[in-house]
Amino acid sequence: MKKHNFSAGPSILPQEVLKQASEAVIDFNGLGLSLVEISHRSKDFIAVMDNAQALVKELLEVPEGYSVLFLQGGASTEFLMAPYNLLTEGGKAAYVDTGAWSSKAIKEAKNFGETIVVASSKDKGYSYIPKGYDIPNDVDYIHFTSNNTIFGTQLKEFPGGNALKVVDMSSDIFSRKIDVSQFDVIYAGAQKNMGPSGTTLVIVKDAIFGTSGRTIPSMLDYAVHAKAGSMFNTPPVFPVYVSMLTLEWLKEKGGIDAIEKINNEKAALLYNEIDSNPSFVGFAAKEDRSNMNVTFTLADESKKEKFDALAAEAGISGINGHRSVGGYRASIYNAMPIESIQVLVNAMQEVNK
Amino acid sequence: MKKHNFSAGPSILPQEVLKQASEAVIDFNGLGLSLVEISHRSKDFIAVMDNAQALVKELLEVPEGYSVLFLQGGASTEFLMAPYNLLTEGGKAAYVDTGAWSSKAIKEAKNFGETIVVASSKDKGYSYIPKGYDIPNDVDYIHFTSNNTIFGTQLKEFPGGNALKVVDMSSDIFSRKIDVSQFDVIYAGAQKNMGPSGTTLVIVKDAIFGTSGRTIPSMLDYAVHAKAGSMFNTPPVFPVYVSMLTLEWLKEKGGIDAIEKINNEKAALLYNEIDSNPSFVGFAAKEDRSNMNVTFTLADESKKEKFDALAAEAGISGINGHRSVGGYRASIYNAMPIESIQVLVNAMQEVNK
Repeated sequence: MKKHNFSAGPSILPQEVLKQASEAVIDFNGLGLSLVEISHRSKDFIAVMDNAQALVKELLEVPEGYSVLFLQGGASTEFLMAPYNLLTEGGKAAYVDTGAWSSKAIKEAKNFGETIVVASSKDKGYSYIPKGYDIPNDVDYIHFTSNNTIFGTQLKEFPGGNALKVVDMSSDIFSRKIDVSQFDVIYAGAQKNMGPSGTTLVIVKDAIFGTSGRTIPSMLDYAVHAKAGSMFNTPPVFPVYVSMLTLEWLKEKGGIDAIEKINNEKAALLYNEIDSNPSFVGFAAKEDRSNMNVTFTLADESKKEKFDALAAEAGISGINGHRSVGGYRASIYNAMPIESIQVLVNAMQEVNK
Repeated sequence: MKKHNFSAGPSILPQEVLKQASEAVIDFNGLGLSLVEISHRSKDFIAVMDNAQALVKELLEVPEGYSVLFLQGGASTEFLMAPYNLLTEGGKAAYVDTGAWSSKAIKEAKNFGETIVVASSKDKGYSYIPKGYDIPNDVDYIHFTSNNTIFGTQLKEFPGGNALKVVDMSSDIFSRKIDVSQFDVIYAGAQKNMGPSGTTLVIVKDAIFGTSGRTIPSMLDYAVHAKAGSMFNTPPVFPVYVSMLTLEWLKEKGGIDAIEKINNEKAALLYNEIDSNPSFVGFAAKEDRSNMNVTFTLADESKKEKFDALAAEAGISGINGHRSVGGYRASIYNAMPIESIQVLVNAMQEVNK
């Protein structure tokens, strides 16, 4: 039976990417050797790393003066690298708290100095995105989470102002057009729209190197990785390769403009069903709804057994909501075809029959 | 043509492991989904992580009171995690400097406090292992590099004493019997004997948690990862899975005792050729020779073109020495069959014809 994979991450990747990745594990580039058993300093792997970086620059129109890094440790490691690299001794960091991942980032920043929360949607269970807040003039940087996987909310606009801007785009990078020049550090765990788990994309403005004035351990220093072209130490070869393949796939699909249009259509199909189907209620505030993670609950919990059975029969996988929200979460990343969303919509309609 | 992969790392993995890994990228456990697109919290992946940890414990006879972690960031990240977790404010760390990787570890420790080098073989280009040195009583820990990939030397014994002991076993873990109870932290990048690049094995004595007294960022805190069973954040799914497969392969081969015997035979075959063939000279001191990385040079550089051609014709790959040593380096990790070493020996003999 065909599976429809709505997993929140690690999550669906394009079939053609998985096929190529599977082949490379046996024989890479016709070398007679596996991708994962060659030197990362070989010309074949250096070409992978170079191509992955070039694709990020091309797809996101990264301006001059930024470095594209493929690191390890996930967004959780960036939670500490951001303050290590940007927060001065005695300085102040500002955070917008839009959910569990923002809260974790705030917790780590506090180890490095004063960390203020300039806006939070915790009062309403993170069901909306705060707006209209002020960013103090004396902060070293302000940090955002662009998309909140658990709650299904997404920042549609980012505030201006002079503070350095750091954004965790783990769950919506490459899904929509962004203006990289608005930001000083963009980071994203690969395992949503970019590839398998095990690598973290960081796009960092070279001008911020040395900002914190701290002595930074080499592996936590953006400048060290930028200087070494992400090859300061052995990179995570397979995750970087699969990310490269996924970015090639995205380029062939027409790039960010094309995928954003498709993502809008996919999200509209599902949100329209939620809004028109009396059995379901959306979780997030309408104007802040995520195009990546669609959160909803049953209006009548007694229908849970029926809906779960219908979903399972249809081959739908990974739609259980996070334990802190409950209900359902359909993650509809780039690689998710609209046909799979239609299958989910059909199951939602069946509940009423 | 069959390739004989002597790469120093990422390096050769068993063919049956690569085949299984390749299949799992398409369909894992018959789920109809790829290994890399399912949730790391799914029961299928939790079983992988549990099994990988159990295999480490079984193969290395890890005693009670130790945690087995699969982290990210390579040995280079452990260079800073070791002092962060063990070096007290105002305390002192001791290092044995046996080569490039020790030196890098020392450099990172210096960011955290006084770091003394109690012994070094730098005076002779790291061609031997220092012995008979004293470990001061007032150090927080002493750090060793068990095998020096670049220079082809290996610690055959570790000194006793009361200091906490930290060892980088990146390039010889699982190749020989070790007494885990001798150590407080053992770490190893996967990409030699355990799997592909992208995960780091850490075996840590639970009693050392909190030793440094420092406020440690979550991702750098051994205690945090131990408490979360290596699932504090999204683990590097593919590298952990392939490591599990490789450890299963090792268990089927008969475990550490069996592989150590084979490794001794493999190394003896190659070192005997180096010692008996007038065209070649070994680099490392005989008593300190590594069973994993065999370093040698030509006695007569004019034979280089001939030997390189013979090696290439035989399908030998990855034997160029590191730029800091020159000559040749044959890495003969667990997955390297003795037949491939015989092919290399044959090419070495052909040089004289």
